[in-house]
Amino acid sequence: MTDQSPNPQAFEARLRQIGAERYHDRHPFHHRLHGGQCSMDEVQAWVINRWYYQSRIPMKDAAFMSRCTDPQLRRIWRSRIEDHDGGEAEGGGIRRWLKLAEGVGLDPDYVASGRGVMPATRFAVDAYVRFVRDEPLIAAMASSLTELFAPAIHGQRIEGLLAHYPFANPETTAYFRHRLTEAPKDVAFTLRWVLDHATSRADQEAAAAALTFKTEVLWAQLDALWHGYVEGSIPPGAWRPGEGQLR
Amino acid sequence: MTDQSPNPQAFEARLRQIGAERYHDRHPFHHRLHGGQCSMDEVQAWVINRWYYQSRIPMKDAAFMSRCTDPQLRRIWRSRIEDHDGGEAEGGGIRRWLKLAEGVGLDPDYVASGRGVMPATRFAVDAYVRFVRDEPLIAAMASSLTELFAPAIHGQRIEGLLAHYPFANPETTAYFRHRLTEAPKDVAFTLRWVLDHATSRADQEAAAAALTFKTEVLWAQLDALWHGYVEGSIPPGAWRPGEGQLR
Repeated sequence: MTDQSPNPQAFEARLRQIGAERYHDRHPFHHRLHGGQCSMDEVQAWVINRWYYQSRIPMKDAAFMSRCTDPQLRRIWRSRIEDHDGGEAEGGGIRRWLKLAEGVGLDPDYVASGRGVMPATRFAVDAYVRFVRDEPLIAAMASSLTELFAPAIHGQRIEGLLAHYPFANPETTAYFRHRLTEAPKDVAFTLRWVLDHATSRADQEAAAAALTFKTEVLWAQLDALWHGYVEGSIPPGAWRPGEGQLR
Repeated sequence: MTDQSPNPQAFEARLRQIGAERYHDRHPFHHRLHGGQCSMDEVQAWVINRWYYQSRIPMKDAAFMSRCTDPQLRRIWRSRIEDHDGGEAEGGGIRRWLKLAEGVGLDPDYVASGRGVMPATRFAVDAYVRFVRDEPLIAAMASSLTELFAPAIHGQRIEGLLAHYPFANPETTAYFRHRLTEAPKDVAFTLRWVLDHATSRADQEAAAAALTFKTEVLWAQLDALWHGYVEGSIPPGAWRPGEGQLR
């Protein structure tokens, strides 16, 4: 049989291996950030650019729902948008991110305007939204499986930020604390769904490729950040240190 | 000045005029339905095909949210999806539609499978989802303004169904009763938004064209229904009387 699929355990192990090899916790920028070696300019650049990713996540999840014909799957997915947008009074993950922005000395309105975001960040993030909108459902689902690897990085980040940076406190790190419980809830369902539905070799290849693609989306953002703000080659139009400061 | 825009009152009147001339409450099928002249086969055909429209509405609303960069606008729009999908236990508008399906003697699982839906219905409805996904935001918003005209038709429908058809009761007409309060809440916000944002001549033209397009989406569904089930020219693959009955 040429189309014999590996069993779900082997397939899950393959997905986890993609994370072990390619998730952005391996990127030098994160070691620098969590190890306390980032300058405040570098921290601000990270917060500004990562805001763009956060801001597009509910749009990505809505794009998923827009092609999802099963009301029950839509119901489950709705909570992701609720987590990020929240209600008008309390806000959600995006507002918590803007608390971090304030905490690191940035004007949250400047950050939320998206003006200083690097083009390379936008290209990577927009590619993710388009992927989820246009690719087969199983690939769209699988692309969110980087959440399998997220709690570890959020844990390291909370610890590293609190240990090394004066701005870090429960309020400014609230985004990451929320993700410690939100991401595992979401990913447990999605992993189960992908393992149950990707039973052919072709679907498993598509799911693995989607997860790989997503690790690239995350990695490319940190490469751009490193080139721009650690090496100091800021592209035209992107945020320059000193701009958008909290008054 | 060639780009002088009419004032918001004149623009609103223009939008309402589109409804007065083109909304599907003017279609002969609705007069036939509300007047009690539809055979049960015709009622069943309507329920089966209109289910497809209902089933795509949350996908259309998610498509809207997928391109909406303003968290507050997404928050407001979320309630539309909640109205249609509801929670797992109680369901929403789609489940209420399936209650109507049962009430008219159809197997709700057959209806929810979408198997009997006419191709012309799918084409019209899918065109609407694509429109909201791809057209400029103001056109996407304006296309939902047919809700301005919906309460009248839902009122007539509840009254007409209860007066003429033994299947009509509070449970089977629950979908329409809910829409009597849901649609005005949604449309009040959307109309305000469109009037406030479509201030250039070009945007007003785009909004009027979008609303016109949406009336065409609704009208085309009833034309197809009439041709197929009143005139009796059922296209290959579409539901045939007697199929999908409740046992």
